[in-house]
Amino acid sequence: MLHATTPADDLIFGLTHVVDLPGLTAAGGLPVSAEDIAAIIGEAERFSRDILWPQAQAADRQGAVYENGVVRVPASYREAYRGWIDGGWQGLAAPAELNGIPIGGQELPQALWMAVSELVTSGDMAFSLCPLLTAGAIEALVQFGTPAQQEAWLPKLVSGEWTGTMCLTEPQAGSDLSQVRTKAEPDGMGGYRITGQKIYITWGDHDLTPNTLHLILARLPDAPPGTRGISLFAAPKVLPDGTANALRCGGIERKLGIHASPTCVMLFEGAEAQLVGEPNRGLNAMFAMMNAARLGVGVEGVAQGARALALAEAYAADRVQGGIPIDRHPDVARMLAEMRAITLAGRLLALEAGAALDRSRLAGATEARVALLTPIVKAWCTDRGVDVASLGIQVHGGMGFVEDTGAAQVLRDARIAPIYEGTNGIQAIDLVTRKLFRDGGAEMRAVIAELRAADPRLAAAADSLERATAWMLDRGQKDAAAAQASAAAYLDAAGWTLGGWMLARAAAADARYAPLTTFYLARLLPRAAARLAEIEAADSLLALLPAA
Amino acid sequence: MLHATTPADDLIFGLTHVVDLPGLTAAGGLPVSAEDIAAIIGEAERFSRDILWPQAQAADRQGAVYENGVVRVPASYREAYRGWIDGGWQGLAAPAELNGIPIGGQELPQALWMAVSELVTSGDMAFSLCPLLTAGAIEALVQFGTPAQQEAWLPKLVSGEWTGTMCLTEPQAGSDLSQVRTKAEPDGMGGYRITGQKIYITWGDHDLTPNTLHLILARLPDAPPGTRGISLFAAPKVLPDGTANALRCGGIERKLGIHASPTCVMLFEGAEAQLVGEPNRGLNAMFAMMNAARLGVGVEGVAQGARALALAEAYAADRVQGGIPIDRHPDVARMLAEMRAITLAGRLLALEAGAALDRSRLAGATEARVALLTPIVKAWCTDRGVDVASLGIQVHGGMGFVEDTGAAQVLRDARIAPIYEGTNGIQAIDLVTRKLFRDGGAEMRAVIAELRAADPRLAAAADSLERATAWMLDRGQKDAAAAQASAAAYLDAAGWTLGGWMLARAAAADARYAPLTTFYLARLLPRAAARLAEIEAADSLLALLPAA
Repeated sequence: MLHATTPADDLIFGLTHVVDLPGLTAAGGLPVSAEDIAAIIGEAERFSRDILWPQAQAADRQGAVYENGVVRVPASYREAYRGWIDGGWQGLAAPAELNGIPIGGQELPQALWMAVSELVTSGDMAFSLCPLLTAGAIEALVQFGTPAQQEAWLPKLVSGEWTGTMCLTEPQAGSDLSQVRTKAEPDGMGGYRITGQKIYITWGDHDLTPNTLHLILARLPDAPPGTRGISLFAAPKVLPDGTANALRCGGIERKLGIHASPTCVMLFEGAEAQLVGEPNRGLNAMFAMMNAARLGVGVEGVAQGARALALAEAYAADRVQGGIPIDRHPDVARMLAEMRAITLAGRLLALEAGAALDRSRLAGATEARVALLTPIVKAWCTDRGVDVASLGIQVHGGMGFVEDTGAAQVLRDARIAPIYEGTNGIQAIDLVTRKLFRDGGAEMRAVIAELRAADPRLAAAADSLERATAWMLDRGQKDAAAAQASAAAYLDAAGWTLGGWMLARAAAADARYAPLTTFYLARLLPRAAARLAEIEAADSLLALLPAA
Repeated sequence: MLHATTPADDLIFGLTHVVDLPGLTAAGGLPVSAEDIAAIIGEAERFSRDILWPQAQAADRQGAVYENGVVRVPASYREAYRGWIDGGWQGLAAPAELNGIPIGGQELPQALWMAVSELVTSGDMAFSLCPLLTAGAIEALVQFGTPAQQEAWLPKLVSGEWTGTMCLTEPQAGSDLSQVRTKAEPDGMGGYRITGQKIYITWGDHDLTPNTLHLILARLPDAPPGTRGISLFAAPKVLPDGTANALRCGGIERKLGIHASPTCVMLFEGAEAQLVGEPNRGLNAMFAMMNAARLGVGVEGVAQGARALALAEAYAADRVQGGIPIDRHPDVARMLAEMRAITLAGRLLALEAGAALDRSRLAGATEARVALLTPIVKAWCTDRGVDVASLGIQVHGGMGFVEDTGAAQVLRDARIAPIYEGTNGIQAIDLVTRKLFRDGGAEMRAVIAELRAADPRLAAAADSLERATAWMLDRGQKDAAAAQASAAAYLDAAGWTLGGWMLARAAAADARYAPLTTFYLARLLPRAAARLAEIEAADSLLALLPAA
């Protein structure tokens, strides 16, 4: 029962029968049929399995290399990236045209892009970050670029001929972007010159494509301090005349995981750039990139869970102890069942968020649902991705600690996802202080009503989440410190509960999912209720805070 | 309030005022005063801080190296090991003499040895494993060696002049030692020749000492199959005449962590060996080593939590975001408080187990208490060590994923502890099917009665644990699969509850610990109760098991 479906099966089923992408897209006038979904997911699964999986461990071991001022990624990534371009994958969810300019995208739904991303990311997470960042740059230019910028850059990015980056973080400006110091000075010809240092720039430099478009947060000379003085700029690595722009990689980080994904220090030394969007409104544009990227990072958590599970299932079916394969030992079966149930719950929750985004774009639904789900998907799925990766190591016993099996790599790679694109702590505060307080809890209450109606076994968790929501709106809205003290527990409770909701819907749609859903609701969902006591005990934490 | 005490403070306080080592040892006729405790812990803290901490990150980066058939460990380990020998640390808890033979130990309590181990392990876990394994070999020889063996080997091991290993695992015999194939054949002169391959041998070869004594599980020619046909042997690397024994290291593993601790494949090619203990009773002797080692591994979980916390506290006090150090941001304070509370709970629980062992040895108490606590300390403290290490990375944000801070190393190192010396799944099954069923739950009920009396805030957790215990004894004793399906959740519930008990006792003894105890009881202890539903829902897991 545990192994009845593959991730591709689940994704096809989830898109088709749980979040009803065919119905949603038909209503929006851009119909995507069940057959389309199955064909695209099948193709993505083959790309992941045949091209990415076989080289991912060697790529990790080889890693990205910084030498003589340039970055080289593993040689196997050339063929992989060629397959990415040839498959037209980068343009899956991009526009076909904008203002009459052909862009080259396939205009398919975001939920389908997320499903494809899961398969690609489970094949090789370090590789998958390159297309993910390019997708963020595309998103920003679609929303905020001028027609000339769109025409110049989008076809290159959408085809995958160029890659894109997001240059936000600086040494003194991590989660607090108000401290950004990078400067942008007008060059007197309508352009700008960027000077400053950015860190943690994923795929900031590499040898896969001839050009890269950097999207950079920087300050104009007359900008007000703080986050209202930050603008977004775009600077290509190679200028239109073929000369190098005044920017370079200053080094790459030695990291716990995603070794083949170069994490760059980027030095801008008067680089030629263009303003993207309004002056001093860069944070808005950044959030356009960031929100899609946050869902993408949530998917990374799911994908690493899927990778851990695939490795652990194969090992446990093969490894004999006590005369039987270890997957028949109840405690090993427990670990595999937890890995399977959590990963499936996260997978379906991510699709639900993707479908909510599609519904708002195609069918005119409000953005409140996707706004609410985004921090939950980002944080809950990535925290669970780390847990599942760790369980995967445990299933392997001693072999799990040895790098050869690949199980350890999954934990090393998965561990970044709760950190970047806004730490999970930031997500929790976003969920509570932006999403919940903004509408007085209306959207969360709507979700709770839906999940309560979906399955009577969700009633206790629904009660707890409702009470936690009331506490947040009552106590938390008056007391920012209390809200922040309990935000992470609140997000976690919501994640476990919504995960149960997704599985209950899956079981209702197809009886094959019923046993795993029963397992999750009986054994894992009680973790949500345990968070309620934690949330309400904010004072016991606040008592420990150092005096201001 | 959070930072009021250091690990050394906690250890001195815990030994003196929580587990009352002075009273216990005085009753046992080998008195250790509060002043003795403070002096020894202070000395161990200096050794850890001054010698081990400064070189641990570089040692990890350098790693153990296998070349030309021999293993080299980082050069800095020479000075560290010299300090270990000069301080007389290895003999801390070893006998002063046995049967009139001087052994050289200080005969101090096991609880004190565990406290010292925590400090050493938090200084450098990879280094600490060498003395830990030697301690296991000492334990086995003290209990099972002949007087001649004791005289020949114990003084060398107790001084640290030689190191010891435990050679148990083989490729086909991991958790299931009944599959051990290594052979021991009589040499006709009272000795044996060992032939076979062992894997995962911690510090199996190295260049720190001139000799190493290997303790090896192997089968005699006429041995019955299964675990009743396994005997324990001892084989030195260098024979008394100065020639090399027929054994060698065949390679070392490339691992997730503890890079400077060589994990060896050991090849025995007719190695000269002596039988230790009775023929075919090797598993008994092994458990003598193993039980002490399991407590030692539990301490590793605590120690890695302490290391993660020290790094995270220092970073969070220094890192400013939003105009204040991040340790004043409530969600960061939450992570630090969880790390602190969990680590302290584990620390005190480990001391409680050590004191129970001392009480049985010195004061004639039964072994039931230490037998019950051992799997809980091993599994709960090591699972929590991984959690705390992961929280430590999260506190560092992006810097946590970069290897330079050392936070990532803690997670990499800590991840082995739930696996070796019996996986945590094995510990849970041991707790339930050996410790709980053997006495019908009597010792666990005694613990529950004690903790219920200690603090009314433990009442709900005590109720849950009592109900879970009743379920295990009722359902689990009739149905092995159900017991195993819920064993891990049972152990986890017991760990959280007993951790709360230890903190409640700390708070009762010293008001400085009261705020942290309140935090733990209000926000973390509810996790115990969530396990009750999980335990009782064993059937939802069993329904997923493949048919036999």
